[in-house]
Amino acid sequence: MKKYKILTGIMTTGTPHLGNYIGAIKSAIKVSKNNNIKSFFFLADLHALIKLYDSYKINRSLLEISATLLALGLNTKNTIFYRQLDVPEITEIMWILSCVCAKGLMNRAHAYKAAVINNKNLKYYDIDNKINMGLYNYPILMAADILLFNVNYVLVGIDQIQHIEIARDIAIRFNYIYNEKCFLLPKALINKNINLINGIDGQKMSKSYNNTIPIFCTELELKNYIRKIKTNSLAPGTPKNHNNCTLFEIFKAFANNNEINYLKNCYYEGISWIEIKILVFEYLNKILIEPRKKYNYLLNNPNYIQNLFKIGSEKARLEIAPLVYRLRNVTGLGNFKKN
Amino acid sequence: MKKYKILTGIMTTGTPHLGNYIGAIKSAIKVSKNNNIKSFFFLADLHALIKLYDSYKINRSLLEISATLLALGLNTKNTIFYRQLDVPEITEIMWILSCVCAKGLMNRAHAYKAAVINNKNLKYYDIDNKINMGLYNYPILMAADILLFNVNYVLVGIDQIQHIEIARDIAIRFNYIYNEKCFLLPKALINKNINLINGIDGQKMSKSYNNTIPIFCTELELKNYIRKIKTNSLAPGTPKNHNNCTLFEIFKAFANNNEINYLKNCYYEGISWIEIKILVFEYLNKILIEPRKKYNYLLNNPNYIQNLFKIGSEKARLEIAPLVYRLRNVTGLGNFKKN
Repeated sequence: MKKYKILTGIMTTGTPHLGNYIGAIKSAIKVSKNNNIKSFFFLADLHALIKLYDSYKINRSLLEISATLLALGLNTKNTIFYRQLDVPEITEIMWILSCVCAKGLMNRAHAYKAAVINNKNLKYYDIDNKINMGLYNYPILMAADILLFNVNYVLVGIDQIQHIEIARDIAIRFNYIYNEKCFLLPKALINKNINLINGIDGQKMSKSYNNTIPIFCTELELKNYIRKIKTNSLAPGTPKNHNNCTLFEIFKAFANNNEINYLKNCYYEGISWIEIKILVFEYLNKILIEPRKKYNYLLNNPNYIQNLFKIGSEKARLEIAPLVYRLRNVTGLGNFKKN
Repeated sequence: MKKYKILTGIMTTGTPHLGNYIGAIKSAIKVSKNNNIKSFFFLADLHALIKLYDSYKINRSLLEISATLLALGLNTKNTIFYRQLDVPEITEIMWILSCVCAKGLMNRAHAYKAAVINNKNLKYYDIDNKINMGLYNYPILMAADILLFNVNYVLVGIDQIQHIEIARDIAIRFNYIYNEKCFLLPKALINKNINLINGIDGQKMSKSYNNTIPIFCTELELKNYIRKIKTNSLAPGTPKNHNNCTLFEIFKAFANNNEINYLKNCYYEGISWIEIKILVFEYLNKILIEPRKKYNYLLNNPNYIQNLFKIGSEKARLEIAPLVYRLRNVTGLGNFKKN
């Protein structure tokens, strides 16, 4: 018997980079290998449509993210790995939840509020200018993603905490209105590493800043990316601070404690930036050689991934079937009672 | 080859009454019998959750409305008859549409605006007080209901015209963003009879006023309902005006031209209200005797209806499969291309 259930998801809007690895992928893969946890990992392909009207990019991202997860060791025997689209009950339950969700709750969601503030700053007459209903409804879809699996924890970054709170609010409201404890109240399991890593230009690593280092590029590309990482101008021989150093953070994400201490010492002893870059590149490249081969193999064999999606969604739908049945009956949408 | 496609739906929130018959059911049944039209008739069970948190009432309404339609002759061989819930692609496409739907469009929807005005009149600080996201999102769900079947016409009452306009707006936006003509632009086919009939108290016949006459009550109940219909106090022998007379409207909904002219003449010649009521009751009851038996049989055999739902949803899903496939590919949610 598994001790508890954890769910996590990743949006399919780009090529996975080291920031994604450190922020989300690493801990999700770790969870997937833990036999004591029942875990769910889903690709948030429906969410992606809010931001991206580009079929090639969305489809490619789905492939690249899946290949990345598998190449880095996601345990799909132990974790239930699926695409949101392949579990049609998610949008059904999203509708059911929306009927008990106060509109005011959505008015107070961070992403929507940020978009409104932006419009106000730009002096738009319509504060909803260019805001689509996907963005506005996003927290309800996320509540359905989470609540349908009745998980104890959702593995998220700090910026996602409000979404868990909203899911809890909706769950409480649903349970209250229908006077049945259909939904567990999930807790956020905070991944503190999220947002910690910077990009090659020193800003937060993010697709929007175009400063990312893809996890799986070629050896030469990886070398070039690492070479370009911005550092200060301290000369060789001068002790350097490893805190808030992008190179150190990248190394730390893959290394064990001994290796981390070794590099700390190098910084302290005044290793040159060029030497650090070579060291980090060689260390990282060595770790990534085998996964990179697997990644490239998978990219060329999408049917293998497609088949995993099929298996995963079947498991996911089996998992949620009793709750879906219950929710339909509780709301009145279930089948007629037999005479 | 069918000439064109028509869709219509009915919300499952109550027991069908004569107002529903005259307003919507009669013309939908007529359409269902027309071999030149490809028609779709769906039970809007998801919509019902916006208004009603009562599993018994929703489930019972689903049964009663279905039994009513079938008892009155809905041709389920010719029309595709299904429950919204049984076509999971509807909520999937609703999400896809919401991602291209401007929030401003929803701000301008009638039902939401009416609720806001009501809150303002009540001097609530929060204009969204007690408004749920189901009500706010309703036009997008309706757009999905309509657009997914690429119909030429939607059979609606005058109060629903805005929803067709919104569906068109969303369709135009989707086709523009993805640069593909995925959706036809549906037109409203107005059912002018909607809202025409009054209830027993003389107000518009509506569940909310508790003044309805169920289509299928017992003979005695029907007699009592008709007896209670409010009339003026014109004495027997005095000519009466058939216009805006509830009794006349009910009669008219079932009668042919000769019969209508006969009753008009009775009014003109000063038939007493009591005589009119007896005449209307007897006429209506005679027509309803056989359907009433069928209705009661069906209420006691929900499995028969359940089976029709199954057949209907299979047909509906087959009908929309090519468009669903296309929409997934156009947005990037489709399967990976084979190597």
